[in-house]
Amino acid sequence: MQLEKVDYKKFIVPIVVGLIIWFLAPIKPAGVSIIAWHMFAVFVATIIGCITQPLPIGGVAIIGFTVTVFTGLVPMETAVAGFGNNSIWLIVMAFFISRGFIKTGLGRRIALTFVRLFGKRTLGLAYSLIGVDLVLAPATPSNTARAGGIMFPIIKSLAEAFGSSPKDNTQRKIGSFLVFSEFHGDMITAAMFLTAMAGNPLAQSLAKTMHVNISWMGWFVAGLVPGLISLIVVPFIIYKMYPPEIKETPNAKIWSEGELEKMGKFSKPEKWMSTIFVVALLLWVTGSFLNIDATLTAFIALSLLLLSGVLSWQDITKETGAWNTLTWFSVLVMMATQLNELGFIPWLSHSIAGALTGVNWVIAFVIIILAFFYSHYLFASSTAHISAMYSAFLGVAISAGVPPMLAALMLGFFGNLNASTTHYSNGPAPILFGSGYVSQNEWWRMNFVLGFVYFVIWIGIGSLWMKLIGMW
Amino acid sequence: MQLEKVDYKKFIVPIVVGLIIWFLAPIKPAGVSIIAWHMFAVFVATIIGCITQPLPIGGVAIIGFTVTVFTGLVPMETAVAGFGNNSIWLIVMAFFISRGFIKTGLGRRIALTFVRLFGKRTLGLAYSLIGVDLVLAPATPSNTARAGGIMFPIIKSLAEAFGSSPKDNTQRKIGSFLVFSEFHGDMITAAMFLTAMAGNPLAQSLAKTMHVNISWMGWFVAGLVPGLISLIVVPFIIYKMYPPEIKETPNAKIWSEGELEKMGKFSKPEKWMSTIFVVALLLWVTGSFLNIDATLTAFIALSLLLLSGVLSWQDITKETGAWNTLTWFSVLVMMATQLNELGFIPWLSHSIAGALTGVNWVIAFVIIILAFFYSHYLFASSTAHISAMYSAFLGVAISAGVPPMLAALMLGFFGNLNASTTHYSNGPAPILFGSGYVSQNEWWRMNFVLGFVYFVIWIGIGSLWMKLIGMW
Repeated sequence: MQLEKVDYKKFIVPIVVGLIIWFLAPIKPAGVSIIAWHMFAVFVATIIGCITQPLPIGGVAIIGFTVTVFTGLVPMETAVAGFGNNSIWLIVMAFFISRGFIKTGLGRRIALTFVRLFGKRTLGLAYSLIGVDLVLAPATPSNTARAGGIMFPIIKSLAEAFGSSPKDNTQRKIGSFLVFSEFHGDMITAAMFLTAMAGNPLAQSLAKTMHVNISWMGWFVAGLVPGLISLIVVPFIIYKMYPPEIKETPNAKIWSEGELEKMGKFSKPEKWMSTIFVVALLLWVTGSFLNIDATLTAFIALSLLLLSGVLSWQDITKETGAWNTLTWFSVLVMMATQLNELGFIPWLSHSIAGALTGVNWVIAFVIIILAFFYSHYLFASSTAHISAMYSAFLGVAISAGVPPMLAALMLGFFGNLNASTTHYSNGPAPILFGSGYVSQNEWWRMNFVLGFVYFVIWIGIGSLWMKLIGMW
Repeated sequence: MQLEKVDYKKFIVPIVVGLIIWFLAPIKPAGVSIIAWHMFAVFVATIIGCITQPLPIGGVAIIGFTVTVFTGLVPMETAVAGFGNNSIWLIVMAFFISRGFIKTGLGRRIALTFVRLFGKRTLGLAYSLIGVDLVLAPATPSNTARAGGIMFPIIKSLAEAFGSSPKDNTQRKIGSFLVFSEFHGDMITAAMFLTAMAGNPLAQSLAKTMHVNISWMGWFVAGLVPGLISLIVVPFIIYKMYPPEIKETPNAKIWSEGELEKMGKFSKPEKWMSTIFVVALLLWVTGSFLNIDATLTAFIALSLLLLSGVLSWQDITKETGAWNTLTWFSVLVMMATQLNELGFIPWLSHSIAGALTGVNWVIAFVIIILAFFYSHYLFASSTAHISAMYSAFLGVAISAGVPPMLAALMLGFFGNLNASTTHYSNGPAPILFGSGYVSQNEWWRMNFVLGFVYFVIWIGIGSLWMKLIGMW
């Protein structure tokens, strides 16, 4: 046996940067405790390690975890509790459910049907998929369930039906484009409705404590124009920036009809899979009224898949994507949570607030939104970011003279749009990224570019639109 | 694709028993809340399901988990937190470390060396393995690390070197016997030293609150005679009750020398593996003095295995045994914890205490130990059992007139020996059982029988020995 290849050179940057930050502790800002500062150093080193990848992300995360506990920054009990996080297990379950789509062939059947209906062009396919997302969004407050449980299995099957898979290096054929478009489609639709993402009602209630009352319709109307523009423009930009190799599929209709013929009749496993999927869909959509947690719905779906014999227990233990994502995402969420609890994030919020006293409100407004956006590199959850920073930033904005409703809604929108940053930015990110269709380099680079697109559409056009309809 | 086979008949018993208990709620004891009673029903149904196995244990656990949350017995956040448990991740890590032993061939080399030295008879091999356990025990307070991290990889390699693996149904050749003997060897050595299991010092400090002062030497001397008798007798009983197919290996010495020759020189991966293993061993042994958590040591070992290139990240995600055990064991631990937190266990302790008022102390003593032993069917952790019941039982024993030191030590010993019950009884159980060498039926049946052996040796001979040396 040979030793596995580890690219040790790629450890240099993360370790050097981490050490520099660590040993800068004596000149750290007074408001940050030494332990918070050290946690920041380990977090930055881990994130850079996730970029340079001397080992796959999971390995980097395990080492980051070990360093965090070994240096005494976080006690073992607290660190390991990160593996027992509700939204992480929703992500894990989404991987299992998607296995059912693939195994039964139902995903392939749905994909082929999509191709038959909209499949003349790849871009058309992306729009039609995002259309499904848009229809589900107002009633599915778990954007993770939407992207991971519902859309991801279909997209994965669709890509594989076109012979596009990261396993044989054909991801760019069509899969990469569809996965990345869905990520943004899900993010935009999450921003458009108060009920399309769990953190939105949180933002609403935090705004209420500052006497800004956001209604469902108010959120919807304010977000409608920038939302629709984004839904039209963003997939097109991705299409240009990150073109799929298969662009036109003129024979797709005939081909897909032939393939559907070959698949034959709806099989028994497909029937079970679709029935269970509809049950899950209904529960995800009605869950907030029936008080059924999105993760519970996913556990119910998995139980039914096992009971009906669609999936075997072996299928679950062999679903390496789920276990991989469980590991690295849990570790990053744990670190980001600790950055907040140890006081680094509160200090950051207050520093930004302090720096803005006496600045013109328009400039302050833009700076606040940008700061809110870019600080998301430090978070592994939209909801966590909103809990940690929304109130502080809204408070600063209001005292800087920004019209309260404008500030409250824009921060609410960007509580979703700031996911256009990393592969751990929100719940859908680790699932879609974890599929392997988009490299981390591409993921970060394109999200960075699209961030500017969102600034223009939402801060620019969005603010004007809100002025036009008299919301501020 | 066909549907997976699910043996629906095997659901009948768990569901019927669960429903009967559930609907007996109106005539439940007054001291138990309705929610605790229902939790008990779901727990019993899940455990029976783990025995009848309509699906593999993991599937049964997922369904039990879903029912627990769906019926509102435990909120999702609390239930899912069960996956972030310290000792569970030590178990998971132990699986990964054992992969390194197998992959590098180091485990095989150690196994062959053992065979060369002690391998004339299979029974001799078992004794020599347990001997290693005994040497490590006083200094390794994590019996899970000892059995899972240290002994399990060696035993697994040893079994595979003899062509014995559950994968091809050859487990009974030698593996089953060695695995099950190690389980008991680990359990006995854990009972023998105050520092051989994390729960023992807990028992010591709980006893102290009742003015019973147990010293390290006191524990050791009291446990020495029954401990040594158990170490001699129990492997022999297992050998008779559950004989390995390969009993004598007269040519083993020559054969193993040949195999070692074939393996050639110590390879680079083997060197790394053994170095890292020694580091882990030292940290496990000295951890309690250096204040390094056993789970942290395991994370350190895994980090080093990844960094050195002994293991690839793929090896980790493909280690299905780890993910399987993570799932089912977390769910059972969560349920057992809830049984305690919802008040079922406290009620049970107090009921037993109440029933014993006015009984002769010798009879009370025996009943208390038996009740402590058999109540372990409700626990997925020795330490949890000690925390939940030790004080109540010791209190009852003392007020029933049992000599305090006798009661305190005997409950301490049986805090380890009660693991001779289920496949989720303590930390080592899920690892050794999870290896697949021993079926659940065999595991439960033989442990049940060995329970009586422990009663005779420890309550019988042990009490007399303690009288002889004047400890009561």
